[in-house]
Amino acid sequence: MTNLTLYQWKGSPNSRRIRIFLAEKGIDIPFTPVNLGEGEQRSDWYSAINPRRVVPTLVLEDGTAIGEVPAIMRYLDEAFPDKPLLGTTPEEKGIIAMWERRMEQEGFAAVMEAVRNAVPGLKGRALAGPHAYDQIPALAERSRRRVADFYIDLDARLGEATFVAGETFSAADITALVAVDFATNALKIGIPEEAAKVRGWYETVSARPSATA
Amino acid sequence: MTNLTLYQWKGSPNSRRIRIFLAEKGIDIPFTPVNLGEGEQRSDWYSAINPRRVVPTLVLEDGTAIGEVPAIMRYLDEAFPDKPLLGTTPEEKGIIAMWERRMEQEGFAAVMEAVRNAVPGLKGRALAGPHAYDQIPALAERSRRRVADFYIDLDARLGEATFVAGETFSAADITALVAVDFATNALKIGIPEEAAKVRGWYETVSARPSATA
Repeated sequence: MTNLTLYQWKGSPNSRRIRIFLAEKGIDIPFTPVNLGEGEQRSDWYSAINPRRVVPTLVLEDGTAIGEVPAIMRYLDEAFPDKPLLGTTPEEKGIIAMWERRMEQEGFAAVMEAVRNAVPGLKGRALAGPHAYDQIPALAERSRRRVADFYIDLDARLGEATFVAGETFSAADITALVAVDFATNALKIGIPEEAAKVRGWYETVSARPSATA
Repeated sequence: MTNLTLYQWKGSPNSRRIRIFLAEKGIDIPFTPVNLGEGEQRSDWYSAINPRRVVPTLVLEDGTAIGEVPAIMRYLDEAFPDKPLLGTTPEEKGIIAMWERRMEQEGFAAVMEAVRNAVPGLKGRALAGPHAYDQIPALAERSRRRVADFYIDLDARLGEATFVAGETFSAADITALVAVDFATNALKIGIPEEAAKVRGWYETVSARPSATA
């Protein structure tokens, strides 16, 4: 296991998705910090590892670099099949992939879009990656409304199932948990009072030891 | 195989990603049309199948509905392991998931965002899904620039490898092919003259029998 290295940053919510994933599976690998506060993701050394200049990246023993959170999760669940977080049967795998993606697109990505299009320090870098794009204030506003809708939809879903993708904790819960904390911390949009199912679920998942990862 | 049904629409680029995937694997299943031109994705009957009101959706014999293109691909490659399109080793699976996602986010999603934020018929429906969001003209413009950057980045990638994810045709090529055709048809942003590697790759992949699916 020590032949893998995770390039990541402690304050990065996308890095936290992988840290929690590793903690749930009991995989202990070294972390190499990429200091986002100092723009280290745009350094020559890190751009050579991940030309998209985003964290996290998982580097294998042979130097192969895997970027993109769902792709890193996929590798880890295949290489370390114990305690699967992406399902075991084809049907479970499809269902968990669907819900993990919805939590990302409707929750996590909406928070990220609101942050990137509003924070003064991200002017000219409204999208992650190597290209420069201007912020769009109207988009930041629209994204905040998406986060509100995310909570409503998640509350409805958690009325149908104990965890996001069904009766078992999965990668979909990890992404949803990180999205909720990211919305709460970065946008000050916490779980609304009326979303009782989300509140109950959040208490359960945030009490798992992995949540501190 | 006939116990699966794909709910889809012939003019939907996301549906085409799955049609090509099925054709490559030689899986023959019935298609049920969801007429996007008439807004049938918002009908009661289809909303019951997919509450996100988007196509495609794969419905299994037991009624389980799997939405989201990468999740449908995941199910199909697990349930029908012949002719894998998402890789065979953990490393291949991670690398293909990474590139398929980049082709989607940097190519396909950029085209979709440009279309949804500009087409008059999509006023008030700037994002797919059950919620109403206004179009943002500045976003449509930014997305068009993203499509131009997508071609540049894809050209660089195809200087390193024969296919998008490496030396083998994979799901990443399917998403990239559909993104290029979508950009060309819907935005009139075709492959730029100088992107010679993309042109060569496009000739190869669009000549495969699956491309007509």
